[in-house]
Amino acid sequence: MKIRAAVLEQFAEPLNVTEIELAEPQAGEALVRLEACGVCHTDMYTASGVDPSGYAPTVLGHEGAGIVERVGEGVTSVKPGDRVVTLFSPQCRECIHCHSPKTNLCLAIREQQNKGYLPDGTTRLSRDGEPIRHFMGTSTFAEYTVMPEIALAVVSPEAPADRAALFACGLSTGLGAAMYTARVEAGSTCVVFGAGMVGLGAVAGCRLQGAERIICVDMSDDRLALARGQGATETWTGGPEVVQRVLDETGGFGADYTFEATGLVAVMRQAVESARMGWGLATVCGVAGKGETLDVIPRYLITGRRVAGSSFGGVKGRDQVPQLVQRYLDGDIDVDPFISHRITLSEVNHGFELMEHQDGIRSVITFS
Amino acid sequence: MKIRAAVLEQFAEPLNVTEIELAEPQAGEALVRLEACGVCHTDMYTASGVDPSGYAPTVLGHEGAGIVERVGEGVTSVKPGDRVVTLFSPQCRECIHCHSPKTNLCLAIREQQNKGYLPDGTTRLSRDGEPIRHFMGTSTFAEYTVMPEIALAVVSPEAPADRAALFACGLSTGLGAAMYTARVEAGSTCVVFGAGMVGLGAVAGCRLQGAERIICVDMSDDRLALARGQGATETWTGGPEVVQRVLDETGGFGADYTFEATGLVAVMRQAVESARMGWGLATVCGVAGKGETLDVIPRYLITGRRVAGSSFGGVKGRDQVPQLVQRYLDGDIDVDPFISHRITLSEVNHGFELMEHQDGIRSVITFS
Repeated sequence: MKIRAAVLEQFAEPLNVTEIELAEPQAGEALVRLEACGVCHTDMYTASGVDPSGYAPTVLGHEGAGIVERVGEGVTSVKPGDRVVTLFSPQCRECIHCHSPKTNLCLAIREQQNKGYLPDGTTRLSRDGEPIRHFMGTSTFAEYTVMPEIALAVVSPEAPADRAALFACGLSTGLGAAMYTARVEAGSTCVVFGAGMVGLGAVAGCRLQGAERIICVDMSDDRLALARGQGATETWTGGPEVVQRVLDETGGFGADYTFEATGLVAVMRQAVESARMGWGLATVCGVAGKGETLDVIPRYLITGRRVAGSSFGGVKGRDQVPQLVQRYLDGDIDVDPFISHRITLSEVNHGFELMEHQDGIRSVITFS
Repeated sequence: MKIRAAVLEQFAEPLNVTEIELAEPQAGEALVRLEACGVCHTDMYTASGVDPSGYAPTVLGHEGAGIVERVGEGVTSVKPGDRVVTLFSPQCRECIHCHSPKTNLCLAIREQQNKGYLPDGTTRLSRDGEPIRHFMGTSTFAEYTVMPEIALAVVSPEAPADRAALFACGLSTGLGAAMYTARVEAGSTCVVFGAGMVGLGAVAGCRLQGAERIICVDMSDDRLALARGQGATETWTGGPEVVQRVLDETGGFGADYTFEATGLVAVMRQAVESARMGWGLATVCGVAGKGETLDVIPRYLITGRRVAGSSFGGVKGRDQVPQLVQRYLDGDIDVDPFISHRITLSEVNHGFELMEHQDGIRSVITFS
């Protein structure tokens, strides 16, 4: 079928919204009609050409929600009409990682996905007979996509697609970092560095876990206002003095849980150094630049701090994204304030511009 | 009373084994007659003057075992005749840390101890009326010492003092890193970097936890032979290729648990990078040089590795040192091979020399 999609033709060039071909779903795959898709930093990062593992041409987009239209042979977990959230982090429920409660990093299709292929090593996307590679296994800057069923989370049909889409990446990453990676305990003190989509999700996750103090640190007053809306009990402007301030305000100990959601290694270091002596856990969520390192003074470790990282918030997508969406429907998570702009697929490059200017939290593409 | 003790008079000079004064135990304190004391790197490190928090004059020594002779007012947990192991890491059982299962870093007397004083801010050691400061709250390079009762673990009288002494620091640190900090799971793959006292203890701890593969890495064949005796299933000579070798031998994943027991930040980095994707935990036990940092590529964290540190193996001393000593008496831990040299107090400087030449694992001072 012919579809309109935003193609990354050349790194560091605007995406080309154009017509391409999408083949029918094969065994284990589903055709999804996209209803909404968030514009995320990872899309822009790949488009910029800075990501060494990037490739072109490809159809970007991974924060999608839509409706299953048709399924390939042997598909049992989704059916036409299901509302689904796309998962760049799939869950096969069969590999050693899916069987472990310790990780969400499903191994089933990792290699092919990283290379831009569906699990069978081919693409469904093409143009003039030339294959176009998939991106993150999702390619949701498009009217339709074909994806493996193990990468589709069936969510409540009551969830509006534009809100559901945010659970496909940034929001779940933040929520999960607090809920599944750090497993924040009730009554604890948390510091969240960064109030973008992930940081705000982490603030909400800390609140859902029953944290007593949630300090959110960012450079933008507008974002800090959003953080208060998500449950931050204190909001601070970032800077080099933040570590000392955390110590001063916690009897010299530091915070039980800290979260880094900026991608800056200097801030990751602040997260480590403001974590509590004895048991403080610093959870790194951001993606650092190539070649950069988080430099840890070993004494911070010896005196009881731990450092962890979180990919997609440790969320096992097919099991837990529907649960998180349900918590939104139950009124536990206030998703609306995250949608700062609604745009069309043709305006996707404008979505990148808004992000570059840190204008709002999320632009969401809606398809009609 | 007059006692013989090894006094650090000047940094970077040999210890002076001489007669000094020891006052009677005050409230909450006990007089201990030392029977044995290991010579540990921390003693030598402080003697060298490199430790910025060091001071002189002081009586070094912290890996001690002995017999309680007299107790001060209000002492209830030890009595004359008890065999005790000295704890540089005390356990008051009352502070917020002692109440938490997450840490062994008792807060009760930390500040005074770090400054060289007993909890009341004074010393029991003196010479010609001039106070001599205590070291690590223990000062066990001496015929007798006075210590807070919260820093004495009562162990089985059947435990020979020279063997029991090793549980006062190095051995418990290694055992505990595996048993209490990392909580190694049965069937797992472990890599221990360094086969000194701490690393060998970690090997034994991994074995006690039921690890399936225990790889020990060191530069010395003699030490690696000792590691095999403690339960290492494989022993490798260290070098820059070790990380790749761990990956190669674990299907590309890495080890479930890694332990660093060298104090070298480059080796700490190897411990992080050879920990398993998804859930690998790297536990840092060694004390790095001042100003050195462990440089972590954040991607290792994001893909599921965690980094922790361990001080005294996470062992809550009064509760758990007696349990560990009992496991030795039960035949679960083979302590004898760790004692490479038996020396007298007068030979303490020779003990430092042996350590500098990496001759054996532990010199133990025995008192008669």
